[in-house]
This record gives sequence, C-alpha cells and structure tokens, in this order.
Amino acid sequence: MNANSSNQLWIYDTTLRDGTQREGLSVSTEDKLRIARRLDQLGIPFIEGGWPGANPKDVQFFWQLQEEPLLQAEIVAFCSTRRPHIPAAEDPLLQAILSAGTRWVTIFGKSWDLHVTEGLKTSLDENLAMIRDTIEYLRSQGRRVIYDAEHWFDGLKYNREYALETLNAAIAAGAEWLVLCDTNGGTLPHEVSSVVKDVIQVVGDRNSPQIGIHTHNDSDTAVANALAGVLEGARMVQGTMNGYGERCGNANLCSLIPNLQLKLGYSCIQTDQLAQLAQTSRLISEVVNLAPDDHAPFVGRSAFAHKGGIHVSAVERNPLTYEHIQPEQVGNSRRIVISDQAGLSNVIAKARTFGIELDKQNPAARQILQHLKNLESEGYQFEAAEASFDLLMREALGKRQQFFTIKGFQVHCDLVSGIEQQNSNALATVKITVNGQDILEAAEGNGPVAALDAALRKALVNFYPQIAEFELSDYKVRILDEHSGTSAKTRVLLESRSHHQRWTTVGVSTNILAASYQAVVEGLEYGLLLYLSTEAALSTHQ
Amino acid sequence: MNANSSNQLWIYDTTLRDGTQREGLSVSTEDKLRIARRLDQLGIPFIEGGWPGANPKDVQFFWQLQEEPLLQAEIVAFCSTRRPHIPAAEDPLLQAILSAGTRWVTIFGKSWDLHVTEGLKTSLDENLAMIRDTIEYLRSQGRRVIYDAEHWFDGLKYNREYALETLNAAIAAGAEWLVLCDTNGGTLPHEVSSVVKDVIQVVGDRNSPQIGIHTHNDSDTAVANALAGVLEGARMVQGTMNGYGERCGNANLCSLIPNLQLKLGYSCIQTDQLAQLAQTSRLISEVVNLAPDDHAPFVGRSAFAHKGGIHVSAVERNPLTYEHIQPEQVGNSRRIVISDQAGLSNVIAKARTFGIELDKQNPAARQILQHLKNLESEGYQFEAAEASFDLLMREALGKRQQFFTIKGFQVHCDLVSGIEQQNSNALATVKITVNGQDILEAAEGNGPVAALDAALRKALVNFYPQIAEFELSDYKVRILDEHSGTSAKTRVLLESRSHHQRWTTVGVSTNILAASYQAVVEGLEYGLLLYLSTEAALSTHQ
Repeated sequence: MNANSSNQLWIYDTTLRDGTQREGLSVSTEDKLRIARRLDQLGIPFIEGGWPGANPKDVQFFWQLQEEPLLQAEIVAFCSTRRPHIPAAEDPLLQAILSAGTRWVTIFGKSWDLHVTEGLKTSLDENLAMIRDTIEYLRSQGRRVIYDAEHWFDGLKYNREYALETLNAAIAAGAEWLVLCDTNGGTLPHEVSSVVKDVIQVVGDRNSPQIGIHTHNDSDTAVANALAGVLEGARMVQGTMNGYGERCGNANLCSLIPNLQLKLGYSCIQTDQLAQLAQTSRLISEVVNLAPDDHAPFVGRSAFAHKGGIHVSAVERNPLTYEHIQPEQVGNSRRIVISDQAGLSNVIAKARTFGIELDKQNPAARQILQHLKNLESEGYQFEAAEASFDLLMREALGKRQQFFTIKGFQVHCDLVSGIEQQNSNALATVKITVNGQDILEAAEGNGPVAALDAALRKALVNFYPQIAEFELSDYKVRILDEHSGTSAKTRVLLESRSHHQRWTTVGVSTNILAASYQAVVEGLEYGLLLYLSTEAALSTHQ
Repeated sequence: MNANSSNQLWIYDTTLRDGTQREGLSVSTEDKLRIARRLDQLGIPFIEGGWPGANPKDVQFFWQLQEEPLLQAEIVAFCSTRRPHIPAAEDPLLQAILSAGTRWVTIFGKSWDLHVTEGLKTSLDENLAMIRDTIEYLRSQGRRVIYDAEHWFDGLKYNREYALETLNAAIAAGAEWLVLCDTNGGTLPHEVSSVVKDVIQVVGDRNSPQIGIHTHNDSDTAVANALAGVLEGARMVQGTMNGYGERCGNANLCSLIPNLQLKLGYSCIQTDQLAQLAQTSRLISEVVNLAPDDHAPFVGRSAFAHKGGIHVSAVERNPLTYEHIQPEQVGNSRRIVISDQAGLSNVIAKARTFGIELDKQNPAARQILQHLKNLESEGYQFEAAEASFDLLMREALGKRQQFFTIKGFQVHCDLVSGIEQQNSNALATVKITVNGQDILEAAEGNGPVAALDAALRKALVNFYPQIAEFELSDYKVRILDEHSGTSAKTRVLLESRSHHQRWTTVGVSTNILAASYQAVVEGLEYGLLLYLSTEAALSTHQ
C-alpha cells in the first residue's frame, strides 16, 4: 500500500471493534463476517476486526477470515502493548494477535503520563519500553504495524515532552502509521488542527511514518475533528459506520467519506462504491438490529427530504438550490414529504415517485390535494405515513385494489386489579369478506390491538400466506386535541415490515382502538399491495 | 440587551420554528407554550416562536404569550421579507408579524442571486428593495430586527458582490443582528471560518450590527460550523434543542452551549441553568413525543456511561482520565454500568426536589433505587412522570395514602366497519373499594380509555367531588421493544390538570389498556393527593 499520492486517504473502519462498544449493540461472529464483507465491497482499505486476545468471539472471526479471506481490504487485529515487566514474546495477548494471521496489526499505547501512572501503575520509562518492545517484536514476526496513540490530545496538553517521546518510541520500533486518538472526545476542531500541525512538524521530516486521526463524538464534533486532522496532513481516518461507538460514538464514516471525497477532493473509495454508501449504512443497521437514523447526514431517509411548496418547486427546477450534494452520489434519493404545507407541486412530485404521472391540469391532482388537506385538518399526518398516502392516491385515481372488506369487529378486555395482572388476554372478533367469502374469526392477544391484529391475520392468512411474514415494528400514539380528556382524538402511526421493506400507515379517531384498527388494516393492505400487486410495487422505503 | 461584553454570546433558539420542520415532529400550541417556558427557565435569551403569517397555530401561540409573557426571554416572531412589488405596509405577512406583539422580529431574505431569480422570480434590485423596505417598515413600527441572510454561504460563493449588497441593505435599514445562514448545510468548518472572517472585515468597522451564525447538519458539522463562526467573531448562535430540524437537523444547542461555555470560556447561560440542560433536553423530547437519543453528546443517557473494569476504577479515582467534562455541569450523571452508586445520589437528589431529605445510610434510599431500577428495566420512565415517581417514593417511605382500591375492570368495544363509525361507544365496568365500601359502576365513552376514565370518576365522585375538576390534558403512547409486533410493551404517559396545576403519570404494559389504566388511576390518585393531602403538596410541575 502506497501512502504517497497527495490526495489519497486511507479509511480505517473500526465498526467491528470500537463500534461494538456502543451500549445496546451486540453482534455474533456471523454478523461480524457479514459486515466485514460488506465493508470490503465498499472499498474500505483497512477493517479492524477485533481484539483477539481479549475476546474469544474475535479469535473465531479471524480464523474464519483466514479460511475465506476478504477480496481487497486488509483485516487488522487490535491489541494493547505488552504488559509491564514481561518480555513481549511471553505475553499471551501478543501470541493471540499473531495467531489471528493478519498482515497488519494495530497496537495501542499510552500517551498521557497520568494514564501510565494511574491506569497502568507503572513508570513512564517502562511504558516507553512497552511500546518499543511490542512493535519491534511484531515487526520481527513479519507484521506491519499501525500505532494508536491513546489519549493523544489530552496527553500532549498535560505533558507534551513525554507524549512526543511515546511517538518517537513507536517510530523507532518501526510503526508505519501513527494514529492520534482523541479517546475522551473532548477536543474541538481548532485544537485538533493545531495539534496535528505541531506533530507533523515534529515528526514529519523523517520520511517513514504517516499520521492518522481517530476521533470520538463527545463534543458533537467527531467528523469536524477528523476533517481538521486531514486538512493539516493526516492521511488515515479512523471511524465507524453510522458513528457507532462507546458513549456518544466514533467519527461517522458515512459522513466523513462523502465530505472528504465530494467536497474536499480527496480520494477514498471509488465513485461507484460511494454510490453504495446509503445501502451499506442501512444494511449494517439491520445486521446489528438498531433502527437506522432517519436524520443521519448523507445516508438518512430524511437527508434529502423536502417539504413546503416553495422548496419543492425550486428543487425540481434546480436541485442545487436546496441540496448540498446530489443524493445519488451516496446512493440516497430525494424525497418529497407530504404535509399540510404541501402545495400541488408536492402532490405531483410525490405521485411521480410512486410512478404516477399527474399534471397540474389533472383534476385528480387537485382532488387528492383537497382530500389530503381535509384529512390533515382532522389530524391525519401523512408525512410519516407514506403507505397511507399511497393508498389515498390510488383511491382517488380509482386504482386501489380491494384485497378484503371488513364488516366489523368486537374487542373485550377483562383486567383484574389491572396492575398485578398486566397480561390478561383481550379477545377480538372480526368479520371480513375475502373474494366474496364471509369469514368470522376470533383471537386472543396481549391487549386489544394485539388481539385485533391476530384475529385479522387469522382470517386472512389462508388467502394471503405472505401475511405471516409481516411484522409490526413500531407503534406510536399521540393525542391531538387537548382539553378533551380521554375523549380527545388520537393518532396512531404504525410501522410494519417484511424482510427489508418497511412501510408506515396512520389512523385517527377519538377511539384509540378504531385508530389502531385503521392503521393495522391499512398496514396489512399495503403489505399485500407490495407483495401481490400486479403492477410493480410503487412505493417502498427501506 | 447589550452585545458588547467580549465573551458574552447570545443564544437564539429556533426549536419552535426551524425545529418543527423535522419530519415526524408535530406540536400543539400547548406543547409550544410548555417548551417556550422551559427554554425561558434555561436562560435562553432569544426564543423564536414561529411564523405568525404562515401558520394559524402560531398566531394563537403569540397571543397566549401576550396574555402571560415569558419571564426573561425575548420571544421572537419570524417572517420573510415583503413580497415583490407591493408596499411593505400592505403585505399581510408583515401585518401578521406585527400583531404577534413581540419586541424583536427576525426577517429572512435572499442572499443568493440564483434564489432571487429562480425562487422569487424577481430582479436582484427588487430583492434589495424588499430587504430594505421590510426592515425599515418594521423599525418604523417600533420593532427591533434580526436579519437572517438565507443561503449566505452558497450565495457568497456564487456572487460575492451581490451577497454583500444584501447585507448592506439590511444594515442600512436598521437591522441590529446579521445572521449568516448555511441553509443547505453543505459548508464545512474551515469554510465557515474564512467566510465569517471576511464578513466581519467588510462590515465590522461600522459600529452597529453584530454577526450571528445559523447552521444545519447536512455535513454532520453543524456544531463545529457554529463554533468556527463564534471563534471568528460571531456573537449570536442559532440552533435547536436536541438538534431538531429539517432533513438532518439544526446545530444542537445541547452540544453548543456546553462547548462554548465550558471549553471556550464564553458566557451563554448561568451555571445553575446549564445544570438543567440534560433535564430540559429530555423534557422537550417527551413533549414532542420523540425518543430521546441515548447517545447524544453531553445530555444523552450514555454520554457518561462507563463499562469495563479499568475504565471504572480509573474514572472513580480520577474522572478526568475518561471524561471530557463533569457530567453534573450539564445536569447529566456518570453511569457505571455494573454499579448502582451513581443511581443512589440521583435518588437522593430527586427526593430533595420533592422536599424529602434522604441520606445514603437510609435503607429506604437503596430500596427506592432498587425498585426504580427494576421498573426502569421494565420500561418505565420517570423523567417526565414525576407524579408517578413521587407516589413510588411515598410507597417506599410508607407514606402513600390509599384513597381507593381497584378490584378489577372490564372493557368492551364494538366497531361496525370501523372507519365509518369511529365514535362507537366503548363500555367499561369497574369495581372499587372506597372507605370500606364496594362500588360497582359502568360507563360508556369514546373508546376504551375514555370509558374506563368515565367509570372510575363516576365511582369516585361522590366520595371526592374534586375529581370533577380534573382533566386529562395529554396522552402519549410509545412502543418499547421493536420486533415484538402488537404484543410489544407500550408505555403511556398521561398528563392531567386541574386549574393551573399539571402532573404526569406513567404506565407500562404489553396491554395498552392496562398501561393506560395504570396511568389513569395514578393520575386520579395524585390529583387527590394534591388537593386533599394533609401534608403540603410535594410535587407539581407546570
């Protein structure tokens, strides 16, 4: 790997190590392999796989990659320096990292004197020896070494001389990269700039090691800090996909890569790989089982969403006016949001995304807009319920398929001293017609909505077996008019999913069960539309 | 307001205007008032309330604030410049902003020639006249004016001369603040630095207008961009709580304020107000019914969470080693994932806010903590449900009064073709004991929660006539565990009120009715406690 070309940067992904420190995130070896292969496809040159000495799961992960290696990326094993006062060759942690069988290893060491004396409880000289011995030993075993200088920015602030000595130890021992880590995430961009500049002046005239930057988001500036480092000459950027990481997370590669490549002219990954960024981000969030952040820069579902009539007509004439990059460059897409601020051009633009061509002269367009406004004044909200909006448009255009008709339902709940017996079953009975056949079904559930959902599925599943795959993934209820007590109107937003597709429906009623019922019924209907419609599925949002 | 002191900054909150552009966020007038009063307590000097001309809901909001003004903050009305080719005095938008009755108004105008010709479809000269006339007219009506230069950074890049002319028009007309807006959010921090420096050089020698900065997060650098502006001399910082805003959001004030105040030495709000930041952030997320971001810098639940033995012992010996600030400075707390030590002081601090003095030796403190932790692990959340927390503490201290005992309830709903007949009544039957007397009552309602509430009141009103005064003022439901479909756990937050007092209770269950029931019952109980308790009412939050 050649680090000389002036606008070439090396992205170093640590989703599989630092990223998994995020509270609430846990991954299996299979998950890790799946993520690593996807990052490889994305063109990430360095993928940190884990700490083989500290985590048995990681040992297995590296073994599996030895059997079936990545295509392009270097998989990197991570480890601390040797323990105090033992020879490097006798430290089992270093044996474990060697048996991971990677070409590259990352060793982290202490830069901050306080952490040496308080954390490691050893002398400052012994810490220098630990850095030197560890790197020399790994080099002697044929490994190439990246040195992560932990707590670099704090260390430099408190004891500049000692911090620089630790870097010099790593250089002398043969590290090829020196990565400056803002471990506590407290540094601000202008400080990063001056520190990186300082370091490059001090170590930069020797010809070998290159500088890298590793930042955390505790000050909400992780991405800006990494950019500041690069602008001063850092050539490796460490971060995680979706910014996963301990506390407030690491620098988000999904933001860094497009900023570096599209705005600053650096070269990180290929153009066609960059166009897979949004998909990769979403896939990874699915694999780690965390809801994707709709508002994430570049890759979020809302990153290029427009509402308000003026915005929409302007963006259609000239996207530059309201978009900082073209969404397609990062694999995202423009989205026109429907809301009561919507003008006719919103409705038309929206219809187009569903494959329906309307024009301003078409009376249906105005009719849809009017219907939309009436419903929104009753409390419906289609901004977050695109599936219901799609159904509404199909209705207005006479294109709504009738998969089933509901004749009525009943729900009965019986709670004895409510709090003690929360799971008392509710019983729902539904009467529906499918293909001219009347069906009466009853089902129990934990609560009335679950019972209702169960009864509907039971009634429909023989006709539409796909329904067994649908699941409800989010359910939000909000009261609309205060001062009306429990008789106030409630709005239910219901998100359903099946495999990788998700869709949201809405229901509004003074009766929370009726509102839930509407959203549940439309959710099932829309799912059937996606999987059964003779037309191509018109709208999905992943 | 005096903008001369060199380290004084003016925070300008636009949660209630730009923040509400966030997809999926919608607020009632009551919600807006509650947020405004909370921001006022936090010490935010400028609070943008909305656009009175464009939104009827905002008109009402400003009227209500005229009746009952904020304590300290300036509430600001927002509006565009007049429309092309009509006199300012005849533009209904400007009449609407005047009738909002605020001392300060913010006017946004076009800086980018492309937006003038493509968006407004008028001439460059007419745009200058629109800026000038609008500000002059509002000044003549006694208003102080903040000028938001929309698309400033893009405008300057494409036509520097014209962009500067627009600023000069605003200055000449009497604007006291010029706010440079990165409307599309595409600008990076180093570009913000050089532009703000440039602008201050060009307009800075005239003595009147001060510079402000307004940034969006499309490049994941909104906070860093605002910091860059301040470091070059901007003295007003616009942003939103929790970073809410269109697309990827606005600059997050919950990150900006601590960065500016704790790290850069600027003065924004008072120290004791800063210590309310995390609580304010969470309250606002509850009011707008969005899950708080656990990983948010400074204010998130995970922002100071430590796991792993080394971290924990090091952080206990010397917090500086792993924390960039003291969490208490922003009202957050350290959380040691394996220890409950941090929690205990929370409970004690919380008890103190209710006027109960506990100490660490009191076994009740540990018992409350344990009970609290069990409940929170089941999904309860007491941050926004202080009435329920108060009841829980009284329970643990043996001080909970028993106004009534519930023996059980039944609910029955019958919907015929649900959607057409939304108001079908639900029927609820409750059995309770009051003062040793068994009561069985039934009542109908619009939906099961209303029926249940009605039946309970009917059963209790003869014993406690005050109950007739209580009303339910908000009702929010959120699903807790995804992937469990309609059987997932739901959390209900219920706000009750009587005259000027409000209190919030919480219920959690897989059965939405059981969760609602808990919150309704505790809401009635707490109301009785407020009005009947022999002790002084311990906790109310308005």
